[in-house]
Amino acid sequence: MTMKQGSIGVVTSSRMELIDITNQINQIISESDYDSGICFLYNPHTTSALTINEGADPAVQEDMLAALKKIVPSDLPYKHLEGNSPSHMMTSMVGSSEMVFFEKSSLNLGTWQRIFFCEFDGPRKRKMHWRIMPA
Amino acid sequence: MTMKQGSIGVVTSSRMELIDITNQINQIISESDYDSGICFLYNPHTTSALTINEGADPAVQEDMLAALKKIVPSDLPYKHLEGNSPSHMMTSMVGSSEMVFFEKSSLNLGTWQRIFFCEFDGPRKRKMHWRIMPA
Amino acid sequence: MTMKQGSIGVVTSSRMELIDITNQINQIISESDYDSGICFLYNPHTTSALTINEGADPAVQEDMLAALKKIVPSDLPYKHLEGNSPSHMMTSMVGSSEMVFFEKSSLNLGTWQRIFFCEFDGPRKRKMHWRIMPA
Repeated sequence: MTMKQGSIGVVTSSRMELIDITNQINQIISESDYDSGICFLYNPHTTSALTINEGADPAVQEDMLAALKKIVPSDLPYKHLEGNSPSHMMTSMVGSSEMVFFEKSSLNLGTWQRIFFCEFDGPRKRKMHWRIMPA
Repeated sequence: MTMKQGSIGVVTSSRMELIDITNQINQIISESDYDSGICFLYNPHTTSALTINEGADPAVQEDMLAALKKIVPSDLPYKHLEGNSPSHMMTSMVGSSEMVFFEKSSLNLGTWQRIFFCEFDGPRKRKMHWRIMPA
Repeated sequence: MTMKQGSIGVVTSSRMELIDITNQINQIISESDYDSGICFLYNPHTTSALTINEGADPAVQEDMLAALKKIVPSDLPYKHLEGNSPSHMMTSMVGSSEMVFFEKSSLNLGTWQRIFFCEFDGPRKRKMHWRIMPA
């Protein structure tokens, strides 16, 4: 077995934002020459995350950010002086990694699924690591 | 290495429901002829998820669904017209995939752990993909 | 391919606590003789979890525990008689497993990232399983 690996850059432009990175990941898989396997994605930041959710209607992304802002309180007596403790909490709730199967050199996502880089403390220049393992 | 793969169907009967799929996964592993390895589970839907939690007392599952309904607000001015934005939020909070080790052709779960398919927008006919990697 | 595997013990001393286990995992990788690959971590308990977040300022850990206590209601009419339903909910929100790449026999974490064992119902004697897969 020989895994392939690399990183991609993600530039965010808002404080909180979901960025669809599905096409970039599919291109990586397409260029890997592996027909079938597992794609592992890893976010090395502590105030951003990765998730898989609906991409057809952009309103879903807006609604999820609105819900997250409501779920994670902004007015607790937080001690971290940077002021972004809610962003850290969102990161641990949503998670730092994703795993997706691929077949025929394409991500085996569900009909409505897209992969999103989740910015919770932007705008920033971010990156994301990937590894591809053949089946 | 040769991964094995497949899908199973899950039929849900309520709007929100946790369905214990542990026995089905253990049977898949048992039939795989692999003694030891990692089992990857993937949910291809955007309003359902996978989780691992206590299965001994069914009240835990009820309590988790009650907590999720309380945690994710249902009365925000959501824009997604389908009306199921809270279900999408729950999906990203709980997660689309799980990973469990197996040994002696059986899932290496903790004493109280079971694997649950989490329906957040049912009832529906769902499916779940799996891949098994030998150690 | 030959995965390596094992378990480590984690002793917690509070009801809720984040314990940095990064050094222990790095030592395991260092002793594995694998230069590059993926490290999979698995928590076999139903009221504790694993997460990756900031480790530089201990206040972030305190803030995340404070946020979790606020996010997951403690006063719902829970049915599970053990009284720890919020701990189960936190476990499914934060997740039972983590996956991290490694290179040069060292975890490929981001600058501020550390791996935390999350105790939500301590103090207890816990354990955590790991598997290391070469690239």
